[in-house]
Amino acid sequence: MSGRANVKRSKPTSPPPLSSNAFQTQTQTLISAMGRKSSLLKQTLVTILIILVVYALLNTFLSPANSFSSGSSRLENTLPLSYVNSASINELSRDNMQNFPGNSAPRLKVYLYDLPRRFTHGVIEHHSMARGGRPVDDVTLLKYPGHQHMAEWYLFSDLIRPEPERVGSPVVRVLDPDEADLFYVPYFSSLSLIVNPARAAQDRAGALYSDEENQDALVEWLEEQEYWKRNFGRDHVIIAQDPNALYRVIDRIKNSILLVSDFGRLKMDHASLVKDVILPYSHRINTYNGDLGVNKRKSTLFFMGARYRKEGGKIRDLLFQLLENEEDVIVRHGTQSRENRRAATKGMHTSKFCLNPAGDTPSACRLFDSIVSLCVPVIISDSIELPFEDVIDYRKIAIFVDTASALKPGFLISTLRSITTERILEYQRELKEVKHYFEYGQPNGTVNEIWRQVSQKLPLIKLMVNRDKRLVRRGLTEPDCSCVCSNQSGTDTTL
Amino acid sequence: MSGRANVKRSKPTSPPPLSSNAFQTQTQTLISAMGRKSSLLKQTLVTILIILVVYALLNTFLSPANSFSSGSSRLENTLPLSYVNSASINELSRDNMQNFPGNSAPRLKVYLYDLPRRFTHGVIEHHSMARGGRPVDDVTLLKYPGHQHMAEWYLFSDLIRPEPERVGSPVVRVLDPDEADLFYVPYFSSLSLIVNPARAAQDRAGALYSDEENQDALVEWLEEQEYWKRNFGRDHVIIAQDPNALYRVIDRIKNSILLVSDFGRLKMDHASLVKDVILPYSHRINTYNGDLGVNKRKSTLFFMGARYRKEGGKIRDLLFQLLENEEDVIVRHGTQSRENRRAATKGMHTSKFCLNPAGDTPSACRLFDSIVSLCVPVIISDSIELPFEDVIDYRKIAIFVDTASALKPGFLISTLRSITTERILEYQRELKEVKHYFEYGQPNGTVNEIWRQVSQKLPLIKLMVNRDKRLVRRGLTEPDCSCVCSNQSGTDTTL
Repeated sequence: MSGRANVKRSKPTSPPPLSSNAFQTQTQTLISAMGRKSSLLKQTLVTILIILVVYALLNTFLSPANSFSSGSSRLENTLPLSYVNSASINELSRDNMQNFPGNSAPRLKVYLYDLPRRFTHGVIEHHSMARGGRPVDDVTLLKYPGHQHMAEWYLFSDLIRPEPERVGSPVVRVLDPDEADLFYVPYFSSLSLIVNPARAAQDRAGALYSDEENQDALVEWLEEQEYWKRNFGRDHVIIAQDPNALYRVIDRIKNSILLVSDFGRLKMDHASLVKDVILPYSHRINTYNGDLGVNKRKSTLFFMGARYRKEGGKIRDLLFQLLENEEDVIVRHGTQSRENRRAATKGMHTSKFCLNPAGDTPSACRLFDSIVSLCVPVIISDSIELPFEDVIDYRKIAIFVDTASALKPGFLISTLRSITTERILEYQRELKEVKHYFEYGQPNGTVNEIWRQVSQKLPLIKLMVNRDKRLVRRGLTEPDCSCVCSNQSGTDTTL
Repeated sequence: MSGRANVKRSKPTSPPPLSSNAFQTQTQTLISAMGRKSSLLKQTLVTILIILVVYALLNTFLSPANSFSSGSSRLENTLPLSYVNSASINELSRDNMQNFPGNSAPRLKVYLYDLPRRFTHGVIEHHSMARGGRPVDDVTLLKYPGHQHMAEWYLFSDLIRPEPERVGSPVVRVLDPDEADLFYVPYFSSLSLIVNPARAAQDRAGALYSDEENQDALVEWLEEQEYWKRNFGRDHVIIAQDPNALYRVIDRIKNSILLVSDFGRLKMDHASLVKDVILPYSHRINTYNGDLGVNKRKSTLFFMGARYRKEGGKIRDLLFQLLENEEDVIVRHGTQSRENRRAATKGMHTSKFCLNPAGDTPSACRLFDSIVSLCVPVIISDSIELPFEDVIDYRKIAIFVDTASALKPGFLISTLRSITTERILEYQRELKEVKHYFEYGQPNGTVNEIWRQVSQKLPLIKLMVNRDKRLVRRGLTEPDCSCVCSNQSGTDTTL
């Protein structure tokens, strides 16, 4: 019997129970067996190795998770985060965690719908063709065009990636829908909105791509799916990052977990903090990788963007008037262009504070540009909702000022000028701590955090699914809603 | 070197780390240094040991969990389930889990308020004294009296138990409030309601215990606590199991996570499925431990309880009229008494179905008596909310009938009679599977499940806490609520 063969066979996956005495005894036996003919040095070495091995075995194979997963509980399907039969790769290293009720958080199982191509790569193709691109043989080779609402691309790419590359993801893709906790609908709903260049609409009316037709077609397709019908779409995840995405069909998908950047155009029964997940925009200017500090940040406040906006964004023009003549302030009107992006990068990397007024809707991608620039955001947007607010205390990284105060002459700039360097450094340190949450491209960045946020919705989704199915007819006069409310009247500023 | 020792030691379950050239090189160096004078067998052995050690080191000391927890992240306090500095016992075996965002679910840290005695054991003492008991030297030795709303006792007892005895609990008690995720307020609010025997109120008006005074005093005490003020009570857990418990101060504690059995007397902005946790009543009759089957269950339907009730309970009298003359049905008017409990136990253990009509409020402890009796519940209570509905699909263990259908002459009893034995056995099997959720006394029963449910609220609580603090003044015309709604119109019956 060769030593090698011997090694292959011997696999004591079930070491003795957790009593430390048992281990000591075993260790002693092993030591004496091995050490009899050895020198003291060798014996010591072997002892240390054995102790480490025993610890590795314990650490790796004796966790309650393993003993639990072998059960065949009839409740499997209703357990919230059951990882029985999980298709996860690297189970040993990844799923080595507890499975006490409530303590376990195995990875959520997500089924990726294989949508008809028109809803995924077909949208990219249309976008390319509308810009003079030629038809291609394999549309899956087309590059998704960069824009601020491209979370849909990152999430899709993440799920189609081979499992071993999805390091640290809180979700695992399953190929059998019966195993799934949630269903992801990878429609490129935000790209679809901008397939037609603004001016092309008039030029080539005949051959135009219709986003609205695609929205309708998507929901028709969905409503035919067995797993959609099963729970009225409640266990489906749909991305609609642009505030206008899927607007036409929102009423038919409102049961689902929506991934949005903004509630500005959604009604209270369409979307909420309770049911949905707020996504950061994809930042459009480069991350600042320099040192913390204010020496290279000569201007106090920077803003570049559209001066005129609707709704909450009307304050922009008023702020321009208040600020444009201050010498340590840079406010510039500018639209999205490569050149302006370069100018904005420079401005955000060389200013202490970055102004973030509301746009047409409360949110704007500029906030995330400010964050990765370590330019302390000054947020003037009374109804803004922010991504990942359970893990990010935004008061530590940004300054909130209510609109009325911000419009008082002199208030904003004198307040900002009075903030000490030390305080600015504190903000910068915090910004640096959290900026990974806003890096879609990073291995443990935005994408994983989005999935973590989605995972946290599952218990409520499961509850609503079960409850919906047993509810009997009731003479309700009001909608049947469960809410959490804020009762604070609010402050002028968080400073 | 014995073969046995060899077997114990060699465990090649862990392949060398993926693409770690550095480790391979190191291993080679070590092997050559050690192996020069050794036999082939020894060399092989040492190689294996080294590989295992490298794996142990990697697995144990290089996991993201450790690198994360060893840092002094300034975000520690905002991370949802951070287990940094956790006071848990058996950390090696229990907390050996990943800390990738979303993958980690270390135990929630709960701080148990050391309430003035009047709110805890003082209530037991008053209850005893009102029934002729004598003053005692040490009130902590007094026995909490059994009743259907005694979850407050089980939760309190659980938290004061030594940590090693709290097997499988999803929460760990911490003694430093700064470490706590949540704060538990162990006021015996339900017992307080029944301190004065119904008739004593008139008899001894002078010396009477006042529940209302205690409610006021509790909230005054709470509102002085630093940790209450910090987050407006949002991260506090308060039990009010009896639908009347704490009714006088509910408006001042509505931000907290409430543990209730019923929303019947709570307004939408007081309590909801989103923010709060529904508790089962403590069952008052014995668990049925016999075999599944219908042979010993001769009567089709059983009910014993008050015939006349207010609100939704008005149907009780109508149901009595419909059912009391059916020969395979037992419906009896009866109040709580030891004798009646014995009769109810017998009835529930020997009937196929148990009627669960609404009482003054939608819920009643009878449901949980039915469940542990394996007597299939027939629920006629259109607005009932049920505990743990994310993990329990109640359609599998109970039959729901809407009130209108239930009152159609003949409908209910003929429907129940037509249910096959096989189907009843299916219900019974499911009942047996879930009944541990309703056993407060069991080690991994109701108490652990309640804590698990509470744990699931934490991300939303953290979000609301952070959000409340940065909200600026807004001209809102409506309350600022986040909701999840049911849009189903409901069915007649789940059968």
